[in-house]
Amino acid sequence: MEESILVVNCGSSSLKLALFDQKNRKIASALAEKLNNSDAFARISGDDNPVELPAGASHEQALQALVNEFRNRQLLTGTPKAIGHRVVHGGETFREAVLVDDATEQAIEACAELAPLHNPVNLAGIRAMRALFPDRPHAAVFDTAYHHTLPERAYRYALPEHCYTQWGIRRYGFHGTSHYFMAREAARLLGKTPATTSIISAHLGNGCSITAIRDGLSVDTSMGLTPLEGLVMGTRSGDVDPGLFDYLATRGVSATEAHRMLNNDSGLLGLSGQTNDMRSLCELADHGHEPSQLAIDVFCFRLARYVGAMTASLAQLDALVFTGGIGENSPRIRQETVKHLGLLGIELDTGLNRDHGRMSDGFVSSPDSRFPVLVIPTNEELVIAQEAERLASA
Amino acid sequence: MEESILVVNCGSSSLKLALFDQKNRKIASALAEKLNNSDAFARISGDDNPVELPAGASHEQALQALVNEFRNRQLLTGTPKAIGHRVVHGGETFREAVLVDDATEQAIEACAELAPLHNPVNLAGIRAMRALFPDRPHAAVFDTAYHHTLPERAYRYALPEHCYTQWGIRRYGFHGTSHYFMAREAARLLGKTPATTSIISAHLGNGCSITAIRDGLSVDTSMGLTPLEGLVMGTRSGDVDPGLFDYLATRGVSATEAHRMLNNDSGLLGLSGQTNDMRSLCELADHGHEPSQLAIDVFCFRLARYVGAMTASLAQLDALVFTGGIGENSPRIRQETVKHLGLLGIELDTGLNRDHGRMSDGFVSSPDSRFPVLVIPTNEELVIAQEAERLASA
Repeated sequence: MEESILVVNCGSSSLKLALFDQKNRKIASALAEKLNNSDAFARISGDDNPVELPAGASHEQALQALVNEFRNRQLLTGTPKAIGHRVVHGGETFREAVLVDDATEQAIEACAELAPLHNPVNLAGIRAMRALFPDRPHAAVFDTAYHHTLPERAYRYALPEHCYTQWGIRRYGFHGTSHYFMAREAARLLGKTPATTSIISAHLGNGCSITAIRDGLSVDTSMGLTPLEGLVMGTRSGDVDPGLFDYLATRGVSATEAHRMLNNDSGLLGLSGQTNDMRSLCELADHGHEPSQLAIDVFCFRLARYVGAMTASLAQLDALVFTGGIGENSPRIRQETVKHLGLLGIELDTGLNRDHGRMSDGFVSSPDSRFPVLVIPTNEELVIAQEAERLASA
Repeated sequence: MEESILVVNCGSSSLKLALFDQKNRKIASALAEKLNNSDAFARISGDDNPVELPAGASHEQALQALVNEFRNRQLLTGTPKAIGHRVVHGGETFREAVLVDDATEQAIEACAELAPLHNPVNLAGIRAMRALFPDRPHAAVFDTAYHHTLPERAYRYALPEHCYTQWGIRRYGFHGTSHYFMAREAARLLGKTPATTSIISAHLGNGCSITAIRDGLSVDTSMGLTPLEGLVMGTRSGDVDPGLFDYLATRGVSATEAHRMLNNDSGLLGLSGQTNDMRSLCELADHGHEPSQLAIDVFCFRLARYVGAMTASLAQLDALVFTGGIGENSPRIRQETVKHLGLLGIELDTGLNRDHGRMSDGFVSSPDSRFPVLVIPTNEELVIAQEAERLASA
């Protein structure tokens, strides 16, 4: 299996490992959670039995254990052709995926101030895997890279210039790998080439972002300097009045505490007071829990507002695309969002939408809709595997 | 002149006083600036000679001097029928203009925590004028009141519920008096009634906001808890990533300093590094000053983004309306904004736009435009005078 590709995605206290064969088919995956914690655990997907880990296992230890388990099960034989690593923030340094050497590691480390929760742990994964497979090519694939084509009017905030030139404060955008995949898949489903396809791509997972893609390139997106800006998310507020921080300060809430609240206690969880899980929210709302219905209303309205905002960057619109856990699986959220888009002329077909477009090549819009609407399951791991394979072969 | 109406608009260090006759014609106006400052001055509009003020005059002293000057010049004879006062923040207490009594004053004072720079000075003006005209009706007209019809999905932030219930954190919206005037005037120009007219109203002055008006009612707006949110303004940033404050803190910038920077050093001034005056910016850009061109680009792009966002609240769009100093007087800004609205089908007529619609009843759109575009000079003083007159007559 010299042609297999490993894909590593390290989160702050979790990681995912995926194995692709030479035909880009995922043949195995594994995950570890609660890392650096006494109840750390890991398992191979499809198998409920845990993979043994040292107590309080680190990312490095979990990766080693899972690679060993892939080997024990003969999923991985020999060494992989390449290893692809998800890295959250590439700053202005990385405009595309790159092969990792020591200088690359340092540059990723330098971007860590822009993503202090993510880049260090991404880097820990890279270092662990480079130690395990020192002779194989490792590729870093950045969440921000696809957005390197944002025009200056879209990436600059209306702040004094030194905020940008000295401190790197600008819109970077995230979920780039997913939005790139949407551009490619939408073009395929529409029978077009990516370079002539313009879409609005809404990635709705626990984090949510929306991107305007013009002729295959990202030209506007809702996340900014950090993944906190833009749409309402599971526990993140998305946009707020920037005067909020000063107002909270007069209530005795420090900037640090406000930042924590906006990241961890807000969004769907904050509005509902119950949960950040959209399925649970829909059930609560159906049982008459008004704050849950409000959370759904605000989520969908704010998303529709951003669909409208994204039209300012497009000369044509070939499709509005929904993806991510919520975007792929919630007919209700798609319907509640599109009901605000009547002036844009967007309409869903109730039946196709209920089936998530599975019987209709992703299409869920009605024949009368001015623009098609697509549901496309995202596959960031596949893109990372392909990028790693491409760079390893180059 | 028992039928005249005085209109008072007190800013933090300035004030404007206007006198309307019984037919709602403005017959005089005056202004005072640099109040509470050693070089405080005041004058009657159209007369360059200053009105004498005590050194370091307060709002009260300036109002007294200007009322006396109106009397000396026989502009005001006897007492006015009513006095109308602009008040910035009515919180959730004031959903419409009201006659002022002592309880009203206290309620306005209670809203001061939402607008600490504005409400106290608005209240100082009310108290000064009530002392001068204790027997006349005084009306308070709130910048926020017109937005009381925002639906909950538009006024709630995705924050924990107690932020709203305990601390009043919600979208209030501002420039309501101007947006209300746009709704009324647009309906008139379109030959419709306000109750059946839906517009997007862009008020672009030193402060900028945009409002979606559905069947005459405000249903979404860009300013929020404070007048800092939304569009790029003269010195205000408008929207930024809420993660900015934490990021600036790591650069040694306190929340207080960040708030000051976003209010005073940002917007057009921050991007250009030169000026917050749009005419000067356009001249600088014409002479090749790139940061000034960037400031214009970001201003117009962000405005176009918000025009798109506002469509999510409308089932029909009878007109896109421009007003305020920039909106009324800059063909270039209107053109640069509308060039991003091609997907919405909005197009200007170059000649009509150059003339600010003055020869065409405000219309500046091309015949091919999917939606009409109007330029309407705002007149907040007139609305305040009419509200005061209405309440005094009731």
